[in-house]
Amino acid sequence: MNFSSKLLENAVNEVSQLPGIGKRTALRLVLHLLKQPKTQTHQLSNALINLVDEIKLCEKCHNISDVKVCEICANPSRNEEIICVVEDVRDVMAIENTAQFKGLYHVLGGKISPIEGIGPQNLTIDSLIAKVKEGAIKEIIFALSSTIEGDTTNFYIFKQLESLNIKTSTIARGIAVGDELEYADEITLGRSIVNRIPFETSL
Amino acid sequence: MNFSSKLLENAVNEVSQLPGIGKRTALRLVLHLLKQPKTQTHQLSNALINLVDEIKLCEKCHNISDVKVCEICANPSRNEEIICVVEDVRDVMAIENTAQFKGLYHVLGGKISPIEGIGPQNLTIDSLIAKVKEGAIKEIIFALSSTIEGDTTNFYIFKQLESLNIKTSTIARGIAVGDELEYADEITLGRSIVNRIPFETSL
Repeated sequence: MNFSSKLLENAVNEVSQLPGIGKRTALRLVLHLLKQPKTQTHQLSNALINLVDEIKLCEKCHNISDVKVCEICANPSRNEEIICVVEDVRDVMAIENTAQFKGLYHVLGGKISPIEGIGPQNLTIDSLIAKVKEGAIKEIIFALSSTIEGDTTNFYIFKQLESLNIKTSTIARGIAVGDELEYADEITLGRSIVNRIPFETSL
Repeated sequence: MNFSSKLLENAVNEVSQLPGIGKRTALRLVLHLLKQPKTQTHQLSNALINLVDEIKLCEKCHNISDVKVCEICANPSRNEEIICVVEDVRDVMAIENTAQFKGLYHVLGGKISPIEGIGPQNLTIDSLIAKVKEGAIKEIIFALSSTIEGDTTNFYIFKQLESLNIKTSTIARGIAVGDELEYADEITLGRSIVNRIPFETSL
């Protein structure tokens, strides 16, 4: 691209480093900002700078938080005996939205993925094991995505927990509520039959 | 969305005000920035702030520029007698990329569009007419998109130039180079036959 302005070129180059945003989209976004009042861009920039400078990870669950111990971990009405293991903050938000879980979380910060160069030492697995060894936790729920990386991570953690005499569970895999059986993939449908539940509990 | 952090929520809200970016995409972008070194976010924010605070519009052609008179208008080797009327900086960049135009530009800043509340007074049409009245310009090339708004804007300007005894032209509409005839729309194909050119000039 042949820019008439260094300032414009610079802004477009920076914006186009974001994932999924190419040069053309970046130019469109930047020109949009130029048409808006300056305050909008200042607010945007300040929000981003404040975020990266001020954000903390919760000491207990490693979730993104404004304070040392996040709201969920600091909430005395939550059940400290059940820990749900998730990949990142988006999963915490998704599960919180269901209002079905009253325990605490443990955010791994990713999944074991040799291809992306992420090993167990890059995740917060040691901290989880240490927490379990303290003895107050009764159940660990694995809630990672059902991919090879997710299953590997689950299994790696499970192996380390095996000797600690703790209950482990994983979220149910099956046909999504409202989905047609005929469009479900075979593995999901197969699992949903093997892991069928008493009819009364589904009511 | 149920954020665990005000800082995160604030950043996501600001990013999701950009056109075509929803809350989920904004969250993905913001979490990406959090995984990168802080300097990247600082560079991005500074580039945006510098842009909106420092950018100027060229006094002559109204194109986006770092200085009072843009590079193109300040270039003595360009032909000041031909003015190409375009909508915005992207069109200038596109035409400059062709390296086929050696005249100057006039950036309108939009098209007349009653639906979006853009009238002639919101564009730089008066400045264009004033420039023409000075007498040095010999030809005006209309290079707006071929839409109702573009045609309306062309016609509005054309009517004001009519009495000034100046040559006006519009960029050629026709079948794109490399396109198959059978897939061309009827209006474009029809126009390309009516406005056919001597074969020798197409070589």
